[in-house]
Amino acid sequence: MNFCFSDKIDGLKPSVIREILKFTSEPGMISFAAGNPAPEAFPTKAVEEITASILSKEPIAALQYSVSEGYPKLRKTLKKWISQRYSIGQPYDDLIIVSGAQQGIELSAKVLLNEGDVLLCENPSFIGSLNAFRSYHVKLEGVPMEEDGLNLEALEKAAKENPRTRILYLIPNFQNPSGTTMSLEKRKSALEIAKKYDFIILEDNPYGDLRFEGESVPAIKSLDTEGRVIYCGSFSKILAPGLRVGYVCAHKDAISKITVAKQCSDVHTAILSQMICNQFLNNYDIDKHISEIQKVYKHKCRLMISEIEKEFHPSVRITRPQGGLFLLATLPEGVDMMAFCQEAVHRHVAVVPGNAFNADESQPSSSFRLNYSTPTDEQIIEGISILGRLTYEMIS
Amino acid sequence: MNFCFSDKIDGLKPSVIREILKFTSEPGMISFAAGNPAPEAFPTKAVEEITASILSKEPIAALQYSVSEGYPKLRKTLKKWISQRYSIGQPYDDLIIVSGAQQGIELSAKVLLNEGDVLLCENPSFIGSLNAFRSYHVKLEGVPMEEDGLNLEALEKAAKENPRTRILYLIPNFQNPSGTTMSLEKRKSALEIAKKYDFIILEDNPYGDLRFEGESVPAIKSLDTEGRVIYCGSFSKILAPGLRVGYVCAHKDAISKITVAKQCSDVHTAILSQMICNQFLNNYDIDKHISEIQKVYKHKCRLMISEIEKEFHPSVRITRPQGGLFLLATLPEGVDMMAFCQEAVHRHVAVVPGNAFNADESQPSSSFRLNYSTPTDEQIIEGISILGRLTYEMIS
Repeated sequence: MNFCFSDKIDGLKPSVIREILKFTSEPGMISFAAGNPAPEAFPTKAVEEITASILSKEPIAALQYSVSEGYPKLRKTLKKWISQRYSIGQPYDDLIIVSGAQQGIELSAKVLLNEGDVLLCENPSFIGSLNAFRSYHVKLEGVPMEEDGLNLEALEKAAKENPRTRILYLIPNFQNPSGTTMSLEKRKSALEIAKKYDFIILEDNPYGDLRFEGESVPAIKSLDTEGRVIYCGSFSKILAPGLRVGYVCAHKDAISKITVAKQCSDVHTAILSQMICNQFLNNYDIDKHISEIQKVYKHKCRLMISEIEKEFHPSVRITRPQGGLFLLATLPEGVDMMAFCQEAVHRHVAVVPGNAFNADESQPSSSFRLNYSTPTDEQIIEGISILGRLTYEMIS
Repeated sequence: MNFCFSDKIDGLKPSVIREILKFTSEPGMISFAAGNPAPEAFPTKAVEEITASILSKEPIAALQYSVSEGYPKLRKTLKKWISQRYSIGQPYDDLIIVSGAQQGIELSAKVLLNEGDVLLCENPSFIGSLNAFRSYHVKLEGVPMEEDGLNLEALEKAAKENPRTRILYLIPNFQNPSGTTMSLEKRKSALEIAKKYDFIILEDNPYGDLRFEGESVPAIKSLDTEGRVIYCGSFSKILAPGLRVGYVCAHKDAISKITVAKQCSDVHTAILSQMICNQFLNNYDIDKHISEIQKVYKHKCRLMISEIEKEFHPSVRITRPQGGLFLLATLPEGVDMMAFCQEAVHRHVAVVPGNAFNADESQPSSSFRLNYSTPTDEQIIEGISILGRLTYEMIS
């Protein structure tokens, strides 16, 4: 049987990261390759209590079909929560529950993009989203990143050169993979450029609550007064990714189309998961829980950076995140990054090669991504020591 | 803000049924419009016990990210289950867990169909799947239904006239909305026609286990020896739809592409839901549970049919399902079906107008769908009595 796959999917490869992750289940492997929240940050006891209560009091509601827009009580809770926390929510806005922010990204692309349309993104950017865009056969144009977000001249140039630009995809807080945060000025300017060239900003904020240093920066969606920004949030990093619950807040016309697309996709998000999220937000001290996660991540990030400063060759540059799960290390010119990553895996330390995050994966990269949320302290110390020796061996 | 939506989504309307369902939450409404399993058929106690056990013993596994292919233990359990139960599974096959069979249908369409390709389906057919196909801007060609499945001459004619035919979508058991079952001879012939014109059969079997009368007919997938059939199954009707767990069994090349598409869509299906399904299949008497559901549905179906025979005008024809959730009633020529359905809602009985299930919704229909799984016995008796009076009023 020879299958003839659709043009949009035929060339799409599995996520490099998810392929690496399969490999990292080998015993003895230290993985800095995942994007998993720290397991010790899961409120397992609370989830156990909440779930028992739901299944004893409202089992039918938790098990029966529900509406595509999402569990009404959770929608209400979230509208209030993002309004208080991020000043998000205009009278023209609405909110839909999705099966993880990934689905919010994918459905936004589906409802807005025709094949051949152009999507601008930070370069590098999150591979899961890039693959979602690729799966609709759109043209990805990467805009180079700086320490405070994307280069605005390059953004405007890309917008000018690509009249079919429909979306700018941004992860403004603790970006994946770079760990950098976009400045308020750049957020405002990006919104102005979006107005000027009439495209939508798709704002992905899975890590926003994981700030452990510095001052928080307003969401782009909170600066928007016309409905130009589609905002995606998630419970994956503040509660648990296995539940697969995220949400999209956007102009009601956009939410209405996303709802139709979601009906086609999975009818609705698992209702038990949605009920767990709702009760957790309402009946537990979510602020206290988040501040505990922040402490865990601050500790792990600082530990990794201090070990890097001790162990890495001084010519290796790193980003210094104020939150989130990742930092990006860049090897000096002339060092073969792919060879570095391959040798690292041979020595039982997994990292993700930077080109995996490029809009055009065939373009070279001298960076690799390090995750500090999943490994233990001991693994961070040992793994960075192994990588450190390798930097000295490969940088002459 | 004026949104410019993608061509594939712009014309797509929300499912008529899901719109009707919102309406049916009005007090006093008797709904024969849903497709919900009977709430009394949910094994609530078992789910409560299983979930408590999972969250006390393996909370991290239940809450952390997992692999896109699905929870490995559930995949293994299901491969064995469908092999024993349906003789499904060739050496070249693989299986992926999806977020309800709906997602299996949607991802199959995404990986196989370009815009403008042709998909053949039973006419009428399940609106959720038709909308998933429409959301990829494919051309739907409906093939008329008979009592034992689609008309084979019409199928071959449609295949011949549409050289871009890529998929034939079938619900062979207790079809939605008609309630009819495709005969073995027609299953074999459809597979032969698929070979001759080189298209894929997408076999959707959400109701297969709900047979309460007659002999079971082999799955088309079990007759296939080359990997031409993609088979979708679901836990929605035998366990609980709110969990959103289904599966696709197909040639490994197709599963591999569906897996890549699923990574883009929702990363993986809610892992707690998957673990619940796995333990239910392994540790509870699933056969006993299914036979109890069958008894409930047999009773409700027989009650509805006997009430119809008493109350409906004799010129209304109905199908007589051997399983599943639905039957289809057809008004005699000259009666305005839409007016009938609207007047029924005025009298607080909701049914779904048949044209909602047409490949071309603008084509007229004289049928309407009745669901017997959701209403209580009292509602069936009262609702059919109200509809019965209406048939006499409208048929002169």
